[in-house]
Amino acid sequence: MNVTVRGQTRHYRTVTFDVAKNSVRLIEQRLLPHEFKIIGTRDFRETALAIKDMIVRGAGAIGATAAYGLAQGALAFRGRDLAKFSKHVETVYQTLAHARPTAVDPVNAMNDVRAAMRSGETVEEQKALALAAAEEFANDDARHCREIGEHGAQLIRNGMKVLTHCNAGWLAFVDVGSATAPMYAAQERGKKFHVFCDETRPRSQGATLTAWELAQQGISHSIIADNAAGHLMQRGEIDLVIVGSDRTLGRTGEVANKIGTYTKAVLAKRHGIPFYVAIPLSTIDWNLKSGFDIPIEERHESEVLGAWGVVGNSKSQIPSSKSAKRAYVRVANPTSGARNPGFDVTPAELITGIITPIGIFKPRELWPKRKQLGWK
Amino acid sequence: MNVTVRGQTRHYRTVTFDVAKNSVRLIEQRLLPHEFKIIGTRDFRETALAIKDMIVRGAGAIGATAAYGLAQGALAFRGRDLAKFSKHVETVYQTLAHARPTAVDPVNAMNDVRAAMRSGETVEEQKALALAAAEEFANDDARHCREIGEHGAQLIRNGMKVLTHCNAGWLAFVDVGSATAPMYAAQERGKKFHVFCDETRPRSQGATLTAWELAQQGISHSIIADNAAGHLMQRGEIDLVIVGSDRTLGRTGEVANKIGTYTKAVLAKRHGIPFYVAIPLSTIDWNLKSGFDIPIEERHESEVLGAWGVVGNSKSQIPSSKSAKRAYVRVANPTSGARNPGFDVTPAELITGIITPIGIFKPRELWPKRKQLGWK
Repeated sequence: MNVTVRGQTRHYRTVTFDVAKNSVRLIEQRLLPHEFKIIGTRDFRETALAIKDMIVRGAGAIGATAAYGLAQGALAFRGRDLAKFSKHVETVYQTLAHARPTAVDPVNAMNDVRAAMRSGETVEEQKALALAAAEEFANDDARHCREIGEHGAQLIRNGMKVLTHCNAGWLAFVDVGSATAPMYAAQERGKKFHVFCDETRPRSQGATLTAWELAQQGISHSIIADNAAGHLMQRGEIDLVIVGSDRTLGRTGEVANKIGTYTKAVLAKRHGIPFYVAIPLSTIDWNLKSGFDIPIEERHESEVLGAWGVVGNSKSQIPSSKSAKRAYVRVANPTSGARNPGFDVTPAELITGIITPIGIFKPRELWPKRKQLGWK
Repeated sequence: MNVTVRGQTRHYRTVTFDVAKNSVRLIEQRLLPHEFKIIGTRDFRETALAIKDMIVRGAGAIGATAAYGLAQGALAFRGRDLAKFSKHVETVYQTLAHARPTAVDPVNAMNDVRAAMRSGETVEEQKALALAAAEEFANDDARHCREIGEHGAQLIRNGMKVLTHCNAGWLAFVDVGSATAPMYAAQERGKKFHVFCDETRPRSQGATLTAWELAQQGISHSIIADNAAGHLMQRGEIDLVIVGSDRTLGRTGEVANKIGTYTKAVLAKRHGIPFYVAIPLSTIDWNLKSGFDIPIEERHESEVLGAWGVVGNSKSQIPSSKSAKRAYVRVANPTSGARNPGFDVTPAELITGIITPIGIFKPRELWPKRKQLGWK
């Protein structure tokens, strides 16, 4: 999507590949929203580190990064010995797969690339096929998000107030995003609307990443504390909720997403506000039979006990990003601990619809329509 | 309640009066939880400033501070001229009343003190009556909270997990607190239980004040992000919710309290978890006919856009309070704004019971039992 740097507006993808330098180029997301910087990795090991250290995060974005990383590793091979080449590619694959061991997207993306490479009979052919497959993965990811936007844009009418949680924006994919896709598509169609971004404690991705994205795209928005959505719904100030999903159960329609999503779904149901989940088909898990079987990651308590930001001298001062010095402040009582579940599970009955690249489905339609939806 | 300073455990009240020095002594709450310090005001103007600058906050605590401040002002008068004395007392009253113009507690407390003074016929008699009435106000506040605890303790059974929101603890009153009173009483009765403290963004009073209180009292507790309670309820990890109230509508049973309270009530209802509100009778508003008539304060957006804490070098480092340097960090995207409603309104149907100093009532029982409950 668009980013304006020193007055110049340009279109960026989260992840691209520089063939001349054999380098994966990434937006350094840990610096956002205080600084916008593109970094290039010099080899597949640096690409794996970028995934591990969360320079890049989000399902589609790390999938594309791993796909490019596999191609990058393959392209760096010197020689024509196919057996040695295959061994080298296996090392690259394992290195990238272990960067975020619980994430499924890098592995799925790299499997696509490896499958494509098999039709090559020489090292050079396989290298070319790897690069083409990685590019195709990234292009598909961006296209799927645009298709989500085309289906979802109809839900946003002029004057609406839309709530979103966490960041399921273009920074989490190669471009466009999932939950944000209907917003960007509605904006293209000339619709006027306002977005409330849940802060999304403890990591505050709503206040940092989603708000930054919307500001860059010129979409009217306000950040709210996670505590405020219920009150705004009660006072008729929210018309629609759109969130993303980390894992969607094809058999039950349950959605695992960032902690707090379930709460917003419960509130939306109470107030009769439509609650939509926007997903690429790759997040559908066709195996699990119950949301209670989804392991909920317990993250480090320091996230809850404090906050990362840019130090300012007063409440009203907004430090410029040039002098930006990120710091962690301990907010909580120093002798107290915290619980920090990272995700929660929203049952199908609270979900109005699931916006996919091929249309909007009721959550319980996923299973009967599984063939259409890419069930494997 | 108890505070341990350099290994010494002592009982403290939030507000006390030093007759010898004619000084109101206050816990400097803005330094908590990083530093524990008692300050003394030299005159009623400093006492008014302490209320204004939120050295002391919370309904009961600022009520008692204003009551003591009125006595402090009266005691400082030199001379025997009753007319001049009355004029001076009026100045003191107005100064203290304007410290937090929207708060009703300082005015109610000072009205009690002024009413008591009227039976004195000389300046000296009125001074003595003012001091006695202020002491009585503070003692009553502490006693009412202990009585809330006696009624509420029965709700907490061994092994329970109790959720609370914001700080309705002893720091908000003279002692014991409202929402915390049942916890402290249950602890005295030897019960074992665990408390989840909602962080309570944007001002984080749960993570700072409530967690500090519970730690000082040795009550097992964990801080959670406001987003996490729904998930914990869904997984059966919360058995009971107890919160405080800023204003309780006697006619409808609606409760205005810190933003996010309504959300917790909606979640508790969905999961069949009892949701109690603990209040002294002074928070009951017998006039308003609907919660929608309660003005909801919109606070400064900087609270949502960042956080106050103690700067640490890393996520895991916990700075010691000696070197504690509080700082504000801007968390959010610098070009985004925020909405920041400070309170929300919870309807009677979501409230299991209201714990008062004279017993536990259904929210819709307040009006029929209004005479017993001090309706004026």
